Amino acid sequence: MAKKRNIIVGQSGGPTAVINSSLAGVYKTAKERGFNKVYGMLHGVQGLLDEQYVDLSTQIHSDMDIELLKRTPSAFLGSCRFKMPDIHEGAEIYEKIFKILDKLEIEAFMYIGGNDSMDTIKKLSDYAIIHGHSQKFLGVPKTIDNDLAVTDHTPGYGSAAKYIAASTKEIIRDTQALTYNDRPTITILEIMGRNAGWLTGATALAKTEECDGPDLIYLPEIVFNLEKFRNTAETLLKKKKSVVVAVSEGIKIADGRYVCELSGGADYVDPFGHKQLQGTAAYLAGYLGAELGCKTRSIEFSTLQRSASHMTSRVDVDEAFMVGGAAVKAAAEGDTGKMVTIDRITDDPYMSSASLFDVHRIANAEKVVPRNWMNKEGNFVTDEFIAYARPLILGDYVPFMVNGLPQHLVLKKK
Amino acid sequence: MAKKRNIIVGQSGGPTAVINSSLAGVYKTAKERGFNKVYGMLHGVQGLLDEQYVDLSTQIHSDMDIELLKRTPSAFLGSCRFKMPDIHEGAEIYEKIFKILDKLEIEAFMYIGGNDSMDTIKKLSDYAIIHGHSQKFLGVPKTIDNDLAVTDHTPGYGSAAKYIAASTKEIIRDTQALTYNDRPTITILEIMGRNAGWLTGATALAKTEECDGPDLIYLPEIVFNLEKFRNTAETLLKKKKSVVVAVSEGIKIADGRYVCELSGGADYVDPFGHKQLQGTAAYLAGYLGAELGCKTRSIEFSTLQRSASHMTSRVDVDEAFMVGGAAVKAAAEGDTGKMVTIDRITDDPYMSSASLFDVHRIANAEKVVPRNWMNKEGNFVTDEFIAYARPLILGDYVPFMVNGLPQHLVLKKK
Repeated sequence: MAKKRNIIVGQSGGPTAVINSSLAGVYKTAKERGFNKVYGMLHGVQGLLDEQYVDLSTQIHSDMDIELLKRTPSAFLGSCRFKMPDIHEGAEIYEKIFKILDKLEIEAFMYIGGNDSMDTIKKLSDYAIIHGHSQKFLGVPKTIDNDLAVTDHTPGYGSAAKYIAASTKEIIRDTQALTYNDRPTITILEIMGRNAGWLTGATALAKTEECDGPDLIYLPEIVFNLEKFRNTAETLLKKKKSVVVAVSEGIKIADGRYVCELSGGADYVDPFGHKQLQGTAAYLAGYLGAELGCKTRSIEFSTLQRSASHMTSRVDVDEAFMVGGAAVKAAAEGDTGKMVTIDRITDDPYMSSASLFDVHRIANAEKVVPRNWMNKEGNFVTDEFIAYARPLILGDYVPFMVNGLPQHLVLKKK
Repeated sequence: MAKKRNIIVGQSGGPTAVINSSLAGVYKTAKERGFNKVYGMLHGVQGLLDEQYVDLSTQIHSDMDIELLKRTPSAFLGSCRFKMPDIHEGAEIYEKIFKILDKLEIEAFMYIGGNDSMDTIKKLSDYAIIHGHSQKFLGVPKTIDNDLAVTDHTPGYGSAAKYIAASTKEIIRDTQALTYNDRPTITILEIMGRNAGWLTGATALAKTEECDGPDLIYLPEIVFNLEKFRNTAETLLKKKKSVVVAVSEGIKIADGRYVCELSGGADYVDPFGHKQLQGTAAYLAGYLGAELGCKTRSIEFSTLQRSASHMTSRVDVDEAFMVGGAAVKAAAEGDTGKMVTIDRITDDPYMSSASLFDVHRIANAEKVVPRNWMNKEGNFVTDEFIAYARPLILGDYVPFMVNGLPQHLVLKKK
């Protein structure tokens, strides 16, 4: 029997600044390890079901292209948010996928993504084993939220954290310039993180020898108390003219409502009824302005925090590349149903390595910030948090600048 | 009579990413031209009135510090928004300022700022001439808004435009990744500019060989028509899955109200009754979501667009430095009541030089985008606009990175 020697890779979930570095890692290692074709699914499993894919050799022509891909934000192949049905419920979908994989002579299936994507890897690898398919299924971790279980951290987090910390430093300087004999100002930064506060905590990295950093940090892991917040802010305003507060978009009050829901408007519900977590900082700014009579400003870091490939961490880009390669290596060695994890060897100097872990124990689990990495009052992170996060933002990847702007590699469609 | 050989410099108005490069230019040239002390007013004229100033030689110790200052966002000396009274109305304030200037043996007074700051230079230089004071008063242009008259463009604009264009490219990639067999998405970017659309127009620079750029651009120079916008967006959504729209915070409808006022909430009026131009994109996103049933996302570039010193243009940083030095040269040669302007010599290769212009014809004037640099429909900028703006974002200043973040020079108080 002729050996299948093709590989297929997809990207899934929210894009990051380094998800394409993992794609580059998959491609380069697949070529080095003798795989024949490297296919890319367009828009993940959702596109694959429509037989939407490309031969990546038609897209990546040189080492220069590999380097450009590592500097390209968002999912090069397109992404999706597609939940695979349970194995016993969605036979038709599974059969369709395996038929396509057989047709393309796929030996290994790589999926770069977060929790939901690991659920896909789990289900597909289970299905393959149950039904006697030989394909290997490997997960490549990705998420700015850093909420995947087992792995020390997740590619995408370090660069988002670096962008957030650098922007926080710049905003703090801006706020300080304009507060003299004026009313004091409270600036509220809204940062992504529905259930996990890893990104919001990263604002603490702005605290450096020449910057005070933010004054207060509120993570979604702790119930948010509006009145306590008001009183803490009031006390701080007596001491300093410019107060900067970082909040997660996902903070909730005791009755379970998101803070961004408190404005009461219909603004935060989209036509499908999904709560959009947007407006937390704007609500709190309005609230404090009314309560304390101070000037307020709200700033949402928004999409930029996950797409700012002009400000990535070298550690992060390199690790994203590494886990992509490690997944290919694992598949080539016969592993399946596993996700690549990053193990931290030492903090300083920072060293890490890749290993493998059973995806069943990762899918759908969520890693939040431990309570003892926040202070007693629940309004800042501890030195342990900072020691954990700092190495992940180190080093830079200088963008390739063309006509004054970072250049990206873009999918060429026929 | 002993010659006065000191100089004082202040920063005023909204900070920019390169306002400190002008400060560095003033300092370096003042030292080279034999001025004795270089004082910095803290928080501009407002601080000067309280005798708040520093000897800059206690802050800048080396060429390395100069370079670090050029990479430091926001006003190193602190800024203010202080309107000088008319000469015939505020004798007390003028006398106080000149008393302080005499005491410090100031020969030249440099003010780095925008329209309001040039008004200050105009009044102080007039007052000096009328009352026989010998000090020279020179204006150094600064504003991300690019709305100063006479000068081809204003330091601060190029870097803000570069940040905006680069971020727009990154956001466009992000939005494209997640639109497959899904409802189409409209993303609305809100950009600074109350009356002038120079910054919003800079989103057009994102249109490059590998990026479509934004689909629609609305500047405050043209009355905004909500229904026409709705219809244009609807037509576009039939052609593409992801539509990106850039709007100035200052767009107004026909009856003179700002779009951000249309939400009706009290959110946009601060306790002093000032209209905060925030929420334009959020309002339009809500409006289109309800009208067209599409997914929407609103993104405010907010403070980051004026403080992102991690993403500056070399042309801009160098010109900011040049105009600082040119102001000192002018003062040393006896000029007063003038602002340094930038003259464009050629577009490609881009070359410019500094000259001087009577501040009376600059103060309080406002340069907006000419109508014929926008298309007929008033929803995009023309090639002339792009040819004007492109050279201003060229080249980079690599930040000095320490522990993973850009380092800044910060005022050391005694």
